[in-house]
Amino acid sequence: MDYSNLISDKMLGVKASAIREIFKVAGKPDVISFAGGLPAPESFPVDAIKKICNDILDTEPVTALQYGISEGYAPLKQQILDRMREKEQIGTDNDDIIIVSGSQQGADLTAKVLLNEGDGVICEEPSFIGCLNTFRTYNAKLYGVPMTDEGMDLNVLEETLKNNKNIKLIYTIPTFQNPSGITSSLKTRKGMLELAQKYNVAILEDNPYGELRFSGEKIPTIKSMDTTGNVIYLGSFSKVFSPGLRLAYLIMDKGVMEKMVVGKQATDVHTNVFSQMIVSRYLKEYDIDASIENSRQIYKHRCELMLSCMDTYFPKNVSYTRPEGGIFIWVTLPEGVDSGKLMLEAVKRKVAFVPGNAFMTDIEAPSNCFRLNYSTMSDEKIEAGIKILGELLAETL
Amino acid sequence: MDYSNLISDKMLGVKASAIREIFKVAGKPDVISFAGGLPAPESFPVDAIKKICNDILDTEPVTALQYGISEGYAPLKQQILDRMREKEQIGTDNDDIIIVSGSQQGADLTAKVLLNEGDGVICEEPSFIGCLNTFRTYNAKLYGVPMTDEGMDLNVLEETLKNNKNIKLIYTIPTFQNPSGITSSLKTRKGMLELAQKYNVAILEDNPYGELRFSGEKIPTIKSMDTTGNVIYLGSFSKVFSPGLRLAYLIMDKGVMEKMVVGKQATDVHTNVFSQMIVSRYLKEYDIDASIENSRQIYKHRCELMLSCMDTYFPKNVSYTRPEGGIFIWVTLPEGVDSGKLMLEAVKRKVAFVPGNAFMTDIEAPSNCFRLNYSTMSDEKIEAGIKILGELLAETL
Repeated sequence: MDYSNLISDKMLGVKASAIREIFKVAGKPDVISFAGGLPAPESFPVDAIKKICNDILDTEPVTALQYGISEGYAPLKQQILDRMREKEQIGTDNDDIIIVSGSQQGADLTAKVLLNEGDGVICEEPSFIGCLNTFRTYNAKLYGVPMTDEGMDLNVLEETLKNNKNIKLIYTIPTFQNPSGITSSLKTRKGMLELAQKYNVAILEDNPYGELRFSGEKIPTIKSMDTTGNVIYLGSFSKVFSPGLRLAYLIMDKGVMEKMVVGKQATDVHTNVFSQMIVSRYLKEYDIDASIENSRQIYKHRCELMLSCMDTYFPKNVSYTRPEGGIFIWVTLPEGVDSGKLMLEAVKRKVAFVPGNAFMTDIEAPSNCFRLNYSTMSDEKIEAGIKILGELLAETL
Repeated sequence: MDYSNLISDKMLGVKASAIREIFKVAGKPDVISFAGGLPAPESFPVDAIKKICNDILDTEPVTALQYGISEGYAPLKQQILDRMREKEQIGTDNDDIIIVSGSQQGADLTAKVLLNEGDGVICEEPSFIGCLNTFRTYNAKLYGVPMTDEGMDLNVLEETLKNNKNIKLIYTIPTFQNPSGITSSLKTRKGMLELAQKYNVAILEDNPYGELRFSGEKIPTIKSMDTTGNVIYLGSFSKVFSPGLRLAYLIMDKGVMEKMVVGKQATDVHTNVFSQMIVSRYLKEYDIDASIENSRQIYKHRCELMLSCMDTYFPKNVSYTRPEGGIFIWVTLPEGVDSGKLMLEAVKRKVAFVPGNAFMTDIEAPSNCFRLNYSTMSDEKIEAGIKILGELLAETL
C-alpha cells in the first residue's frame, strides 16, 4: 500500500528531528558529545527510588498498576501546587494543575487546545527544536522573535503581534533557555506579559531548567506575575529527578484547563500512575531541594570548566553566552560561517555539537551559531573536546 | 483572560467523556458498578514487578531513568515482535513496531499521521468512546457502520466507502469488541481487508482484549492476513499486565512508520522507559501466558455468572450478547426505551452501567442499548446488581 496519499498535511512537512542524525554519531563511544541535552545520571536518586518502589508495591500496588485519573495522581498534584506556590509564587485561586507525560506533551496539549491549522505561534529565535516541531505538527505558523541578551526583543514581539492577527500563543523558555542559555530579564518578562494581555494571546512558559541556577540572582517566573490567567506554566521533573519517567505538569487558568483535560484523555488517558506515585513519595519522604542543590553543583562545575576551556582555546572572534544555570552554552561565530559544515568537520575529529539552524523557525537557512551541552561529560572530555573544537575553529576562521 | 476565542475549532465540540460523570457515581463505595472497563486487579503480577524493579534499579538504573528512544526500548520491541509473530502470525518484513503510552496514544498518533480536518473515519456503531473522542479532537468526520452478530455490516461498509472519498481510516475492534463484546467473523475480517485494499484506506485494528478468549475458536487477526500493509495493528499490555503503566504498541508498514515516529517525538518524546523495562524483564523471566490464562479463568467465571443471572432475572424481551472473551456484555432493550433514563433510575438503586448513546457517533441520540462490565466485581455484587437491574427492567418495560 502506498501511504503517500494518506499522510496528513500537517505531518507532511515535519521531518524527524534534525539532531537525531547527529545523536547517532554522537552516541558512538569514541565521540565526545556536546550535542545532547540529558541530565547528569549521577543526579538520579536511585537508592531512594528503589526503596520507594518497594514501599508502593507493598502498600498500594493496585493504585500504582490500575487505570488512573486524566488530571493526574491527586496527592502529587497538591504537592506540586504547594511547592510551586512556595518556591515560585505560582498559582492563583483561578488556576488548576494537570500532570502530563513530560514537557513535550505539555506543549502538545497546549497546541491541541489552542491552535487551528494556520494559527500563529511566536517563539524565541533560536528556540527548543522539540516544541517547534510540536507546533509544526499542528500546521501552526511559527514567528521567530530574535533573542537579545535579555530575552525576546520586545519591539519585534509587539510588531509581530500587531501585524499578525492569527497569533494565539507566545512560546518562551525564559530561564536558562534551550539552546541559548540566556535568561530573560525581569523587564522582558513583564513586557511579554503586558503584550500578551494587550493582544489577548496566551504565553506558554516552559521552565524545565529554572531550578538549576548556580550563579546570579533569581528572577521571578512570568506566571508568578500573571494575575489575568494569560500564562500557561509548564514545569518538569526531567531535569531535577528523572526524564525516563516522563513527568511534567501544567498550571493554568481553569478557563482553559477543562479542554486540556479532554485533550489529555483523548491523547493517552492519563500519565503513568506508578511514576507519579514514585515522585509523590519522593517529595514527601526525601529532600528534593538537597538533590537539586547537588545537581546545581555538578552543572556549575562543568559549565565553569567548559567556559574556561573556551576562553583558553577558542579564537577571540568567537563569542558565547555565560549561563547562570541550566545545561547549555550558545556559541556565535563570525557572520557567514556555516556551523553545519563546521559540525561535519568536528564529527570527523570525534566531537559533536548541534548546529544553530536546528533551533530556528527556518531550519534550512545556514546558521553561524551552535549549541554546546556540558551536563553529562567528564572533566577530561570537556577539556579534550573544547581543545579540539578550538583548533578546528582556529583553522576555519 | 477569556479563553473562549482562543480554543481550537477541533476541541470546541469535544466534551469530557460522558461516562466520566457516571464514573463519579459509580465510584462510590455503596454502588455496584458495571460501568467500568478495568482489568481485575488480582491479575496484576505484583510480586514479580517488585522483584523486577529491584533488579532493574540494581543493574541498569541509568537506562531506566534517563531519556529513551522514540521508537521504544529495543529489547521490548523485539520481544513483542517475536511474541506477536508466534501467537498471531503478525508482522512481515515490511512491518515495524513502535511502543506507545497506551492504546489511546496509538489511536491518537494514527489520527495525527493520517487525518486532515474533515477527513473521514469509519467506525463500528457502537464503538469505543475513547477512540471516537480521539478522532473528534482531529475534527474527523465519523461514519458509523452498524454491528451485526458477525461484526461490521459489509454492505454498509462498502456503500460508505464508495460514497465518501474523504475516508482514510477504518477503526475496528474485531475481537471481544468494546462495548458490544461481539467478535467479528473471519468472513467479516476478510471483507474489511478487501474493501480497505480496494478503496486504498488504512485499517486500525485495535486488539486489547484478543488474548482474553475463554471460550469458542480463535479467529485470525486482520493484520495476520494483511499482505499489503493496509492494517495498522494496535496491541496493549493494559488488559494482560497493567493499565497504570501505560504500555501499548503499533505494528505497521514501514511506509507509514517514519511519520509515526516523528509524531511520537513531537507528542511525548518517548514512552516511560522504566515501565518498558519492567514488561521486557517480565516477558523474559516470567510466564505471561500463564498469567493471561489466570485472567481468562477470572473473566470466564464472571461472564458466565453474569449471563446466568441475566438469564434468570432479565425480562424475556431484553436481549444481550454472549461474549467468548473480553470484559463486556451489550444489552438491547425493546425499541424506544431510553437507556439513559433507565441509568438514572438504576443509579438511584445503587447500580451503574453505561448507556449506549455514549458509544455512538451521535452521542445525543437516545439509545435502547447499554454496556455491562463484569471484570472487577465479586460474585455477590454481580448477583445482587443484576437482580436489581432485572427488577428495574421488569418494572420499566
